[in-house]
Amino acid sequence: MTPPSAAPALLRPRVAQDLPDRLARSAAVTGRGSHLRTDEVADWLAGRARAHHFRVERVPLDHLDGWSFRPGTGDLRHRSGKFFSVVGLSADVGEGPIPSWSQPIIHQPEVGILGILAKEFDGVLHFLMQAKMEPGNCNLLQISPTVQATRSNYQRVHQGSGVTYLEYFTDRDRARVLSDSLQSEHGSWFYRKANRNILVETDGEVPDHPDFCWLTLGQIGELLRQDDIVNMDARTVISCFPMTGPGEARALRSDTELLSWFTAERSRHDVSVRLIPLSEVDGWEHDAQGLGRPDGRYFRVAGVAVEAGSREVTGWSQPLFEPCGTGIAAFLYRVVEGVPHLLVHAKVEAGFLDTVELAPTVQATPENWQHMAAQERPPFLDTVLSARDRGAVRYEAVQSEEGGRFLNARIRYMFVEADEQTAALDPGPGYQWATPEQLNSLSAHGHYLNVQARTLLACINTGAARL
Amino acid sequence: MTPPSAAPALLRPRVAQDLPDRLARSAAVTGRGSHLRTDEVADWLAGRARAHHFRVERVPLDHLDGWSFRPGTGDLRHRSGKFFSVVGLSADVGEGPIPSWSQPIIHQPEVGILGILAKEFDGVLHFLMQAKMEPGNCNLLQISPTVQATRSNYQRVHQGSGVTYLEYFTDRDRARVLSDSLQSEHGSWFYRKANRNILVETDGEVPDHPDFCWLTLGQIGELLRQDDIVNMDARTVISCFPMTGPGEARALRSDTELLSWFTAERSRHDVSVRLIPLSEVDGWEHDAQGLGRPDGRYFRVAGVAVEAGSREVTGWSQPLFEPCGTGIAAFLYRVVEGVPHLLVHAKVEAGFLDTVELAPTVQATPENWQHMAAQERPPFLDTVLSARDRGAVRYEAVQSEEGGRFLNARIRYMFVEADEQTAALDPGPGYQWATPEQLNSLSAHGHYLNVQARTLLACINTGAARL
Repeated sequence: MTPPSAAPALLRPRVAQDLPDRLARSAAVTGRGSHLRTDEVADWLAGRARAHHFRVERVPLDHLDGWSFRPGTGDLRHRSGKFFSVVGLSADVGEGPIPSWSQPIIHQPEVGILGILAKEFDGVLHFLMQAKMEPGNCNLLQISPTVQATRSNYQRVHQGSGVTYLEYFTDRDRARVLSDSLQSEHGSWFYRKANRNILVETDGEVPDHPDFCWLTLGQIGELLRQDDIVNMDARTVISCFPMTGPGEARALRSDTELLSWFTAERSRHDVSVRLIPLSEVDGWEHDAQGLGRPDGRYFRVAGVAVEAGSREVTGWSQPLFEPCGTGIAAFLYRVVEGVPHLLVHAKVEAGFLDTVELAPTVQATPENWQHMAAQERPPFLDTVLSARDRGAVRYEAVQSEEGGRFLNARIRYMFVEADEQTAALDPGPGYQWATPEQLNSLSAHGHYLNVQARTLLACINTGAARL
Repeated sequence: MTPPSAAPALLRPRVAQDLPDRLARSAAVTGRGSHLRTDEVADWLAGRARAHHFRVERVPLDHLDGWSFRPGTGDLRHRSGKFFSVVGLSADVGEGPIPSWSQPIIHQPEVGILGILAKEFDGVLHFLMQAKMEPGNCNLLQISPTVQATRSNYQRVHQGSGVTYLEYFTDRDRARVLSDSLQSEHGSWFYRKANRNILVETDGEVPDHPDFCWLTLGQIGELLRQDDIVNMDARTVISCFPMTGPGEARALRSDTELLSWFTAERSRHDVSVRLIPLSEVDGWEHDAQGLGRPDGRYFRVAGVAVEAGSREVTGWSQPLFEPCGTGIAAFLYRVVEGVPHLLVHAKVEAGFLDTVELAPTVQATPENWQHMAAQERPPFLDTVLSARDRGAVRYEAVQSEEGGRFLNARIRYMFVEADEQTAALDPGPGYQWATPEQLNSLSAHGHYLNVQARTLLACINTGAARL
């Protein structure tokens, strides 16, 4: 009954077979790309910092302009109802050393866009990276994706928006999509937050902008070997780059076995979570520095006022979550019959949309566990903490988490080589071996890999870490 | 540092390349398998019905043994705290003819197992199907998966459980897993309900049981051309069978374009949903038949008492959701350059874990929309309702939804051929073209395809529908 189509070649291949190779070629280009040498990036960033004159000061939460604790609930909200709010969360996870608790949490139901624009120069894919200030970064300015936009920005685009290059992500005639998925953010600090992670490619001319530069994937990898240069949003988008074709090669567990294990882990946890008024959160107190715990654990809610010298933005103030110490996120890995495998942990975080996501082998802030008995501390933590003494550290750098919501939130990311004694091939409940390629396949879909695992995967995609 | 492994061949291929062919061979075997001829299945089912003597009677909700409306909330719960409860849900979806409402909904946070055991006979995969009674089925007994088990069953297994064949799904030494994912159920009637859909295969001897028989995929397809024989749980497990390798062939949209469209659809909806006390649901009233609406729309909560003649079970009573009429779930399809494409709808259902899932082109109960203006009725509904007159119906059968929770919940499933006039290749917002192979790839992961779309996909996997 359907007449033969008049226009030929409506169909296209379901999968772009050459994309993994093109990304691998870009990852192999280090030292210099078409635009900047890698060793010029620090100067370029310093120049952008001088051009903008940002200043961030701590202020008490009750002095935040436009923000207030609401009567009744005590929730911390902006008078516009926009941005985000700090509310309470009550969690019951049914097991572990702390089976139930309450805490402040960031509630921001809107889905944002984190997008990187790619283009070939001299046959090599380059990625358009932005020098972007975020008030919570210890060094203020870091390298971010081409675009970090809230959905309000996104939908206002046709009335003219201030988000540079946004049109490449909203207009499919300008750029073709190479990956696009909804990925979670920190489940300990965000309630069910997800952002779109998008990679698009254009063949057209892209106008220059002084705050942006084109880097190869290999150059970004070189920067990821340094502390606090490549921001979290850039890392999570890069973790989703389709580096490998589906189902390539061999692994300890087939893709189906890995998915089956994950499905079982997601099913076996009884996680009961609900939002509560911030005033009902137990064990947290207001003081001059913000809202925190007398024992100093976990994090505090702090306030900052931002002065911005550029014309478009005059300044604002906002709350930020400030963790109590530098975290650790480490994958133990083993090379099995020549193939590297990472030990993933199906980790419950109260803010996840669905019970567990795949986390690094160890993800913890040691300060939070010092008061606990040894057997209650996270598995493999001691193996990671002693790895340097054993010469088992293959990659190590401290990176900043989302500087728009967190203050000085830094995590030491590591790959640590293990053996049968430190990490058996038949791991206990909650742990499983997976190849980086298997995790990369999963990153095409949302809610498999948590944001810390994605940072470590970005280190592999870019060549920052070689196992 | 890692010593070379002593045992060789620890690795295996990530993807079992021969599985799609083996499933296709099973789908090609119709008429008779190793056990029963397809035309003997009706007699076998009738025999099983006679052997068990089930009787289901309607009873008022306040006469349900063990169930009561709780003081304060009015929620309908069992005294054991087990099974499920009927609570209220308040939904605000921000758009459409009915942007906000409240309703009763089934709350059952536990994840169940729906599992099918496969085994080769004479080189052809057969699937072990059960003749299972469910009180809400219009004909009581239908063909179900090998196992339908709640997690309580599952976890009790080592103390001895009454669930026949459960060990094939809990003991990986007995059977290898071919697919395993968490899939949603009806988002209009269930609050965030998901079940594990599992296919496993064994090479060992499987003991016979009179309530079970082995059928080929093609035989199940023959039964799916008839009304009310293959139950919903069997259909959803079959929809997840890995029928095609990753990324095979061509399509109107690449896999990445399809995922990107889905990600955008999931992001653009503001769905705000919360559970409320059943007594606070607006517009629903108790009467002699249960809890329903004076206008007769949507569904009612009804009660049944079940008498079971077999020794293990003596009888019970429970509430069931009874829809107001027979639903329609239809895919419009077009064959583009020789490749069939289905028009999928990114549909909001209030009970989904995350805003939208992919639904059939039309999914509606016409009775619920009769009072609406034409432009407010679901898109493409009239095209589907008039399809028989145009000779455009390629597949049509009425199937029962979950008979353990719904009473006489029947949906007319259809594939309807379309053309550029009835369904343009550039569809409007919320709709997209995808090949059955693309949807099959997505069914390896949870929360992409809703349960109605999965029934229609099962019709394709089994050969019941050929486009």
